[in-house]
Amino acid sequence: MELDIAHLTAFAAVVEEGSFDAAARRLHLTPSAVSQRIKALESRMGQILVRRTKPAQATEAGHVLARLAGQISLLESEALTELTGGRESAGLARQIPIAVNADSLATWFLPALAALGEHYSRLTFDIRQEDQDHSAALLRDGSVMAAVTAEPQVVQGCRTERLGAMRYLAVASPALGVDPLPMITNTYQPHRSTSVHDHRKGADALGSIPMLVFNRKDALQDRFAEMVTGSRQELPVTYLPSSRGFVEAAQLGLGWGMVPEQMARPALDDGSLVELVPGRHLDVPLFWQRWRLDSPALAALTAAVQDAAAVALRSG
Amino acid sequence: MELDIAHLTAFAAVVEEGSFDAAARRLHLTPSAVSQRIKALESRMGQILVRRTKPAQATEAGHVLARLAGQISLLESEALTELTGGRESAGLARQIPIAVNADSLATWFLPALAALGEHYSRLTFDIRQEDQDHSAALLRDGSVMAAVTAEPQVVQGCRTERLGAMRYLAVASPALGVDPLPMITNTYQPHRSTSVHDHRKGADALGSIPMLVFNRKDALQDRFAEMVTGSRQELPVTYLPSSRGFVEAAQLGLGWGMVPEQMARPALDDGSLVELVPGRHLDVPLFWQRWRLDSPALAALTAAVQDAAAVALRSG
Repeated sequence: MELDIAHLTAFAAVVEEGSFDAAARRLHLTPSAVSQRIKALESRMGQILVRRTKPAQATEAGHVLARLAGQISLLESEALTELTGGRESAGLARQIPIAVNADSLATWFLPALAALGEHYSRLTFDIRQEDQDHSAALLRDGSVMAAVTAEPQVVQGCRTERLGAMRYLAVASPALGVDPLPMITNTYQPHRSTSVHDHRKGADALGSIPMLVFNRKDALQDRFAEMVTGSRQELPVTYLPSSRGFVEAAQLGLGWGMVPEQMARPALDDGSLVELVPGRHLDVPLFWQRWRLDSPALAALTAAVQDAAAVALRSG
Repeated sequence: MELDIAHLTAFAAVVEEGSFDAAARRLHLTPSAVSQRIKALESRMGQILVRRTKPAQATEAGHVLARLAGQISLLESEALTELTGGRESAGLARQIPIAVNADSLATWFLPALAALGEHYSRLTFDIRQEDQDHSAALLRDGSVMAAVTAEPQVVQGCRTERLGAMRYLAVASPALGVDPLPMITNTYQPHRSTSVHDHRKGADALGSIPMLVFNRKDALQDRFAEMVTGSRQELPVTYLPSSRGFVEAAQLGLGWGMVPEQMARPALDDGSLVELVPGRHLDVPLFWQRWRLDSPALAALTAAVQDAAAVALRSG
């Protein structure tokens, strides 16, 4: 079956921009011309491809075509760049859509993009901050080409590799009166054996001050509290969907929460945060999932992400 | 019409938690008991109140009851606290749901919560990071009690007041070769008169390096580019839905973007960012919208937000 690339491009623009009007502006067409192309493509496929909602969304069948459109667009742009020595690539879409979990985005991910360097300086990105459940759906339906995610399950048509583990520490402001053993507070001893007695004060604090939770899907704090106290508890919760906001809220005394060690370290060092239960932590493995696509840009991105993760994450 | 508070509580829990199972866990009931209460309430109202989707969502009619449930819960908790001198409030929901735009959350908002102080130390929050369009809907349907938003239009049943304006500066890494006049770079002169010549180099850079954009609804960069160049342009875009990520990406040379002056200032001072067009900026007025509700907690929160905004925002 042959597809009309102009129709496919119009379709992809509607899905990416979320409306026929915005797609028309991007493609320098009238909205009616965009609408005709979509209808022609739907007629060709014998299926509805776009739900006319606000924002406009691809149907199940549409997702397959959206992914195809993204793949064609990247390969086409790379081929033209190669053929013309880069002179004719400027007008073409070389935007890579990526899903990244919030804590990676707040710590090690952006430097990885910057490390792509001169050769890819014209590449742009469409970054989505997503939790792992959503990332798999975005990969499957073609909305993103790659994802940093805690989900190890391979998405069909994608390659998956382990990047390492992000270590989370339970932290709070010392002003809340949490009182871990002083000799441990400022010394990092991940393999230190701990006794129940050592945990007592920090563990008691778990139930007495609000727990900071990123959103309804964030179970890290509950897992940590259960690991330390040995039981599930009903704790008062403040929801705060911001990685940097988490650290700031903990420093301000609004509650305790699980923070990536990279973000906790400076605050632990300057004493604005203390560990609730020194020596105890949670490690969350992270994976890089990307489309199986022979694209130099995606390969370069993968290498840069691997390099940055090797430095920033724990191999354990 | 009298409503059964137990039914209303079950209903509110389903809407807040997003599922019958999670609501049952929170209320220490079986899912079937929760389901029966919802059905009883729906039968009483003669309308479907909850869409059984994933997540479960309130219908139009349900939104009215969700808002009522939130108001009753807060007033009840405050009355009991007053009557018992605080001894019996621990088990009651005193969580205030608030919508906050991302840049306020990243700058001045959390210190305002912390400033509520000892008297409200048991208060928790359900913070949603939302753009202005969505905030109005969340206020209307009762999902949040208050919002920091750029939307001045009064939501029915709410009070609105102006908090001040957030000033945005166009910044980029000096490594990108952007070359504003050196004498201006590190001196803040908001009212400096500028000539076309002064703008030239920074304005040229606008089109030559990628533009950082928060999401599809963020028009600040386009507005600034149009203000400075006098015309609408098609610029290469990297989407990055993170306030702190914006500053970091600009410092890393991934593009230029509009950043709140509070976040830009340290980077401008240490030379890791420069202003593209010194002396030009965009001011975005922010508003505090809250339910008309005679609640001491909401009043204390309002005062704390006003105080923090008076220091952090511009009055202009």
